[in-house]
Amino acid sequence: MTVIDTHIHSEGRSVEDLRFMAENGIRKAITCAFYPLPPKFQETLIDLARKLTEFEPRRGERAGMEIFSAIGIHPRCIPPDWQKVLDFVESYSGYVAVGEIGLEDGTDEEREVLKSQLLLAKKLDIPAIIHTPRKNKVAILEKTLEILDSVSFPEDLALIDHNSVETVKVVLERGYWAGITVQPGKLSVEEAVKIVEEFGDERLVANSDTGFSESDMLAVKKFYDACKNDRVARKNAERFFGI
Amino acid sequence: MTVIDTHIHSEGRSVEDLRFMAENGIRKAITCAFYPLPPKFQETLIDLARKLTEFEPRRGERAGMEIFSAIGIHPRCIPPDWQKVLDFVESYSGYVAVGEIGLEDGTDEEREVLKSQLLLAKKLDIPAIIHTPRKNKVAILEKTLEILDSVSFPEDLALIDHNSVETVKVVLERGYWAGITVQPGKLSVEEAVKIVEEFGDERLVANSDTGFSESDMLAVKKFYDACKNDRVARKNAERFFGI
Repeated sequence: MTVIDTHIHSEGRSVEDLRFMAENGIRKAITCAFYPLPPKFQETLIDLARKLTEFEPRRGERAGMEIFSAIGIHPRCIPPDWQKVLDFVESYSGYVAVGEIGLEDGTDEEREVLKSQLLLAKKLDIPAIIHTPRKNKVAILEKTLEILDSVSFPEDLALIDHNSVETVKVVLERGYWAGITVQPGKLSVEEAVKIVEEFGDERLVANSDTGFSESDMLAVKKFYDACKNDRVARKNAERFFGI
Repeated sequence: MTVIDTHIHSEGRSVEDLRFMAENGIRKAITCAFYPLPPKFQETLIDLARKLTEFEPRRGERAGMEIFSAIGIHPRCIPPDWQKVLDFVESYSGYVAVGEIGLEDGTDEEREVLKSQLLLAKKLDIPAIIHTPRKNKVAILEKTLEILDSVSFPEDLALIDHNSVETVKVVLERGYWAGITVQPGKLSVEEAVKIVEEFGDERLVANSDTGFSESDMLAVKKFYDACKNDRVARKNAERFFGI
């Protein structure tokens, strides 16, 4: 059985960790752009995008995991001259999504960067992985939805991630895809299973957000074992990302 | 018992890996600058230096490991305008060594970058961690020694690393410090112990080069268990790096 972890930061994991995940069925994953301190230079995020699309898939291959990349600007990593990162993303290939993008505190700058990245993803006709924060999740989601509306972002290209039981309803009602992140501090396996039972499995995907911090690397596998839902643990991700 | 791993790339390890090392006695380590694909921009290495001195020690702290940083330009990561990285290193603080630096193929550019970094370390009066490659180790070491000579680099500030049984003799005879790297593909524990027995423990330090590839994270601990040499496994590193 193969499951897909639709949101990891593979950079925060050793190759042995990736192998451990692969050996436990997580044979595909999307690694998302993030820099663990605010970069002083936009160039850092361009080299990061190269690292995520060239080096990380090679490392994954050694571990038995197919790694696909999402590149762009996380709201906690906005550098000066950030527009140049978007120019690079537009000129580049080898990635499956723009991400993770989104709002953290909802500042004017974050909103401008998110809007620009959504316009780019729409223009390129590729999916966007849209983060929601731990704090003020509901209020920040509202601001995020306003921006999605303002650019008429295609529902089928938007994956709004790290949903709570509260936000998943809104996200699905608006026609977007919803990520359920099974991880200590986010959703438990039981909560994730309940969400699927309550809201159906049509536009849900599971992930772990495994990365730089302590993580439950097998979260998606545990979710699958608990409910045997092949759509949320794999098929929906294949469809959404075209992988 | 605490041992010190004098050469790791902590970025290639998860926080759980670092905790595993710390729980096994590796409570201090030097993390060395390296970018796993050639960066297109010098700015990437400046943000990397910030990551190594700000973020990695925090991650180490959570894992129970004190992480010290070496920053600079690895010979496989020379970006355009590399001189600007050195300007940054000179203006910056919070690191214990310039490294890892050195020659990989021994090209003119590599030699120029190494020479400039040695001049900088000498000027700043801080140690340098000097890589030797897997291929052509003896010939490249010769070129490295020529450059050290040409800038009259202080013997007490030079740690020449990844020595083979063959190179360690030359390095010690010239008065430099020698790193012995216990790792599959480099030295076995037995070879490392033999080197200590043959050449004495005065200017040897042990490390694992644990990083982005499959690694024996406990190599320095295993070395210590095999020979109980506290100088090579800890005290020499405390003295050389002033930690």
